[in-house]
Amino acid sequence: MELTKNKRQDGVEELRAIPSFEECFPSSEKRVKELEHGGFALRVPYRRVLLSNGEHFDLYDTSGPQGHAPRAGVPKIREAWIAQREARGDTNFSQMHYARGGEITPEMAFVAARENRSPEFVRAEVAAGRAVIPCNRKHPEIEPVIIGRAFATKINANIGNSATHSSIEEEVEKLQWSIRWGADTVMDLSTGENIHETREWILRNSPVPIGTVPIYQALEMAGGDPAALNLEDFIQVLVEQAEQGVDYFTIHAGVLLRHVPMTAKRLTGIVSRGGSMMAAWCLAHHRENFLYTGFERICEVMKAYDVTFSLGDGLRPGSLHDANDEAQFAELKALGELTKIAWQHDVQVMIEGPGHVPLDKVKENVDRELEECYEAPFYTLGPLVTDVAPGYDHITSAIGAAHIGWHGTAMLCYVTPKEHLGLPNRQDVKDGVIAYRIAAHAADVAKGLPGARDWDDAMSKARFEFRWEDQFNLSMDPVTARAFHDETLPADNAKVAHFCSMCGPKFCSMKITEDVRRYAAEHGYGDGEALQKGMDEMSEDFAAKGGEVYVPLSAEGGQEV
Amino acid sequence: MELTKNKRQDGVEELRAIPSFEECFPSSEKRVKELEHGGFALRVPYRRVLLSNGEHFDLYDTSGPQGHAPRAGVPKIREAWIAQREARGDTNFSQMHYARGGEITPEMAFVAARENRSPEFVRAEVAAGRAVIPCNRKHPEIEPVIIGRAFATKINANIGNSATHSSIEEEVEKLQWSIRWGADTVMDLSTGENIHETREWILRNSPVPIGTVPIYQALEMAGGDPAALNLEDFIQVLVEQAEQGVDYFTIHAGVLLRHVPMTAKRLTGIVSRGGSMMAAWCLAHHRENFLYTGFERICEVMKAYDVTFSLGDGLRPGSLHDANDEAQFAELKALGELTKIAWQHDVQVMIEGPGHVPLDKVKENVDRELEECYEAPFYTLGPLVTDVAPGYDHITSAIGAAHIGWHGTAMLCYVTPKEHLGLPNRQDVKDGVIAYRIAAHAADVAKGLPGARDWDDAMSKARFEFRWEDQFNLSMDPVTARAFHDETLPADNAKVAHFCSMCGPKFCSMKITEDVRRYAAEHGYGDGEALQKGMDEMSEDFAAKGGEVYVPLSAEGGQEV
Repeated sequence: MELTKNKRQDGVEELRAIPSFEECFPSSEKRVKELEHGGFALRVPYRRVLLSNGEHFDLYDTSGPQGHAPRAGVPKIREAWIAQREARGDTNFSQMHYARGGEITPEMAFVAARENRSPEFVRAEVAAGRAVIPCNRKHPEIEPVIIGRAFATKINANIGNSATHSSIEEEVEKLQWSIRWGADTVMDLSTGENIHETREWILRNSPVPIGTVPIYQALEMAGGDPAALNLEDFIQVLVEQAEQGVDYFTIHAGVLLRHVPMTAKRLTGIVSRGGSMMAAWCLAHHRENFLYTGFERICEVMKAYDVTFSLGDGLRPGSLHDANDEAQFAELKALGELTKIAWQHDVQVMIEGPGHVPLDKVKENVDRELEECYEAPFYTLGPLVTDVAPGYDHITSAIGAAHIGWHGTAMLCYVTPKEHLGLPNRQDVKDGVIAYRIAAHAADVAKGLPGARDWDDAMSKARFEFRWEDQFNLSMDPVTARAFHDETLPADNAKVAHFCSMCGPKFCSMKITEDVRRYAAEHGYGDGEALQKGMDEMSEDFAAKGGEVYVPLSAEGGQEV
Repeated sequence: MELTKNKRQDGVEELRAIPSFEECFPSSEKRVKELEHGGFALRVPYRRVLLSNGEHFDLYDTSGPQGHAPRAGVPKIREAWIAQREARGDTNFSQMHYARGGEITPEMAFVAARENRSPEFVRAEVAAGRAVIPCNRKHPEIEPVIIGRAFATKINANIGNSATHSSIEEEVEKLQWSIRWGADTVMDLSTGENIHETREWILRNSPVPIGTVPIYQALEMAGGDPAALNLEDFIQVLVEQAEQGVDYFTIHAGVLLRHVPMTAKRLTGIVSRGGSMMAAWCLAHHRENFLYTGFERICEVMKAYDVTFSLGDGLRPGSLHDANDEAQFAELKALGELTKIAWQHDVQVMIEGPGHVPLDKVKENVDRELEECYEAPFYTLGPLVTDVAPGYDHITSAIGAAHIGWHGTAMLCYVTPKEHLGLPNRQDVKDGVIAYRIAAHAADVAKGLPGARDWDDAMSKARFEFRWEDQFNLSMDPVTARAFHDETLPADNAKVAHFCSMCGPKFCSMKITEDVRRYAAEHGYGDGEALQKGMDEMSEDFAAKGGEVYVPLSAEGGQEV
C-alpha cells in the first residue's frame, strides 16, 4: 500500500498527505463520554454530527486521537489500569480471566459505554467466550473495542509494508487512514526487513487493536524454509511481538496432517499463506502441526499478555468451487477443540473464516462455526460471492460480508478492489473500508442491533425534509456525497431548495408527500368514518390548490428518486 | 447522464467517444449460434473469450451489433417473423398469447438458444406467466431476451436526457455504453422537449428491450397538472409510444385511493414520481385511479403491439423505516388483481418492487410477490440495504439486489453511485451496471442456475494455473483488472510468472498447493492404507526437495491471497 504516492487510475501520482479529520467530516465534532469506573476516569470517544435543525446525531468513532507526531505516539490511556493489575501480582491478564472472576474491568466499562450496553452484559459475554476485547497489556494506547455478535459488527483493515522503501511516517499514515474511515482493528502483515521497528511505531500510534500473523516472521527466522519452522522459534516470535503489544495473533493451529490430502481434489488447493506453510511443514516431517501439539505452551504466552487468539483458517476455500468442503469443515472442527483448550486457560479466542462462498452457502458457515466453536466470535474474510469480477472484489465480497454479518459474524476483514491483483493504494484502502462499513452496518440493521437503524432514520428524515447539508454530513463519506451532488447542482442555494436533481425544481414527489402527510396529520387519519371525512376534505383541498402544488414537470428529470 | 462530457471526480472533463467493444474486451470475439426455426434463420449472439491454453469460454452477450451509425439504426432481425404474423391477420401479438396457443415463436427459440434451455420450457414459462419476452412488434431490432426466475437474472439500466442539450448521437451512445457492460434492458426516462425523437432513435438503435414510464409524457400533455391527467390522453400516449416500439411500460395502476392515507405515517411518504402523481390525482378527484378503472382498455393497446406491463410500485418504501409496510403490501395485492386481468388478455406482466429494504426483510418481498402476483416476474430497484452511504448506493443496493435475485427476482434495476445526489455520468453508469452484473451473477450461482458457476470455475482455474492474461480476459472488466495488476507488477513477464504480487516471486501458497495436488493425484489419495502410504511417501519427497520448493518469503508481501 502506497499512501503518500497515490497513483490514480489515470496514472497521475498524488503526493500530498492525507486530509485532516475535519476535512473528511465537516460539521462533526470528536467528543468523549466521561465516566468513572473503579477509581479511573474513562473518556469514551464518539463523533457528533451537528445538524442544521439544531439537532445532532452521535456515531461510533474509531479515528483515535488526532495530531500526534508519529515518533511521539498517542496517549497511553490504559497505563494506570494495567499498572494496577501488575502491582497486585496478576499472572493471567486476559479479559476473559477477569470476566470469569466476576470483575468488570475498565476495558469492559469502556466498551459498554461505547456500545450503549450494560457493563454486566459485556462481562457476561466475555466470560462466556461469545465476545473478545483484544487488548495486550503492553498496548496501553488502545481505546478498547469489543468483538462479538451481540455488539456492533466490526471490520478489520490489513496494512503492510511494500517492497519499496516505506518510512515509519508512511506506515503510521496507513494506519491512520484506515481508522479514519472506520476500521475497528488493523492487521499488520508486513514482511521482510525492519518489521520489528515498523510494528513498534504502528503500535505506539494505534488506538485500535493490532493483529499479526507471527508465522511470517517465524519463517524468516527459519531462513524461508517451512520445514525448518519449530515451536521454540515460534514461541520466541510470539514473545517478541507480545512484548511490543500486538493484540491478536492469527495462528494456523488447525491445519492438521490428516487434512492436507483433503485439499488435493480442490480447484484452488490451499490459498492461505500461513495454511500452506503449515501444510508444507506437516508433509515435510509427516508429523502433526507443531502449533497444534504445542498449543498449551502458546496459551501460556497469550494469557501472560492478554493476546487474543485469531485461530486461522489455513484451509479456507480459494474459490466458489471449494466452498464448504471437507477440508474446510475438518479444520473448523479442529479450531473448536483448540477453542476449548484456550478457554481452559481463560485465553480469548476468535475464529477466522472464508473467503470465497456462494450466497446460498454463507449461512452454513456461521451456523457451523457457532456450533463447532461454541459461539466464539467469527471473523471472516469477505466472503466473495463470485470470482468473476477482479477489480471489484470490494463489491463481490461486501455482498457476502453483509450476509455473513447478518447471520452472526462478529468481525469482517475487508477486501480492497486490488484483491487478487496487486497492492492497495490509498483510494483502494478507503474504498475497501467504506464497502465494509456498509456491509457491517447493513448487518447490524438486519440483525436488529439496538439503535442501529437510527442512523438510517436520521438520514431518511434529512432527505425527506430536504436538509441537503445534513444528508452530506450524516453520510459515511460526506465529501464524496457533496461532490456528487455539486456535479449536477453546484449552486449553494440548491442545497437548501425543496427539490433534488432527479425531478428538478418544479415537480417533486417528496414535496407532494409532504402535503399528503401534513394534511393527514391535521385531520387525524384513521379508518372508517374519520377516513372518509378526511378523504372528502382532502379532495376539495387538493382541487382548490391543485394548480399550485402540481406544477409542470421540468426538463431536468432523469430518474425517479 | 453526460457521456461525451464525462466529468471525473477530480474535475477533469473527458471529451472522447466511448471505447470500442474490442478495447473493452480484449481476446473476445462476438459470435453467433445459427439455428433454423419455423423457416427463419436465427443468429443468436454470444461472446467467446479466447484463453491462452487454447480453450475458450462463452458468455451471454448484450452488446448488440457494432459499428452502425445512429441515424441508420441496427438491423431489423425480427422483421420477417413479425411480418408473417401481421400477414396472417393476428390481433393479439403477445408472446403469452402464442405460448398459450402452443406456438413456439422464433423469439422463444432465440431465447432458448441464448440461455441453453429447451424451446418448450421457454414456451411453458411464458404461457404460465412466470417469464416474459418483452418485444413490441414495432421494435424489430430486438435480440430477444427472457425475464423470469428460471432463467439468468437480468439487469436494467436507466437513461434519460438531461436539462442541457442532448443530441441523438449522445443518447444512442448512452444506450450503447449501458449494454456494452451488460444491461439486458434499458429504460428511457427522458422528459421535456424532443422526447419523441429521442425515443425514436434509442429504439432504432436498441438490440435490447426498451421500457418507459408513459405517465411522464402524459403529465406534460396535462400541462404539468396531475389533476388534469385522464385516461383518454394516457391511451393516446401509450399508442404513440407503442407505435414507436417501446417494449414495456411502467404503469402505476395499483396506487388506489384507499392506499394514499396509509402513507401518511411513513418517514418518507411516497417517493415514486409516478406514484405521487397518481396519489395526487386520486386525492384531487376523490375517485379511484383511472389507470386501475381503465385497466382493460390499456390491455387492448398492450396486446395489439405486445407491450409488456411493468406494473409500477408507486408506493414503494423510500427508506428502511418504511420497508414492507401496509401501503407497500396493499399496493402489491392490487398489482396481483391487475396481473390476473392482464393475463385474461394474454398480456405479459412484470411486477416492480422496492427500493429500500433491510436485509432481513428482503426475502419477504419476493415471497409475497410470488404469492400475491401468481409468480409473475419480479423486477426490483436494488433494494438498498442501508441509507447512510450516499455516493456508494451502487454498493448498498448491490447487496440487496444479489440477495433478492437469489430468492427469485427476475430483473434488477441498477442504481448508480449518483443515486439520491445527481445525474450519473459515464463512469457512474459503468459502475452501476458492473455492480449489478455482479449481483445478478451472484444470484444465479446461489439459485443454482444450470451452468452459472462455470464462469467462476474458469476464472478460478486460470488463477490457480497462473494464467494472468486469462484472468484479465475472463473478468467482467478486463481492462480495469489488468490496469490494477500492472500498477504493482507492470512487466510483461509478470503476467506469465507463477506468482502474484501478494506473496511475491519466492513464496507462493498456490505453488505449494500445486505440488500437493500433483503428488496426491499421482499417488491416488483416498483414505485408510492408501492414504497412509501416500503420506509417508509425500513426507520423504517433501523433505528431499524442501529447500527448493519453500524458498524465502519475499519482502514484497502484503496480504494473503
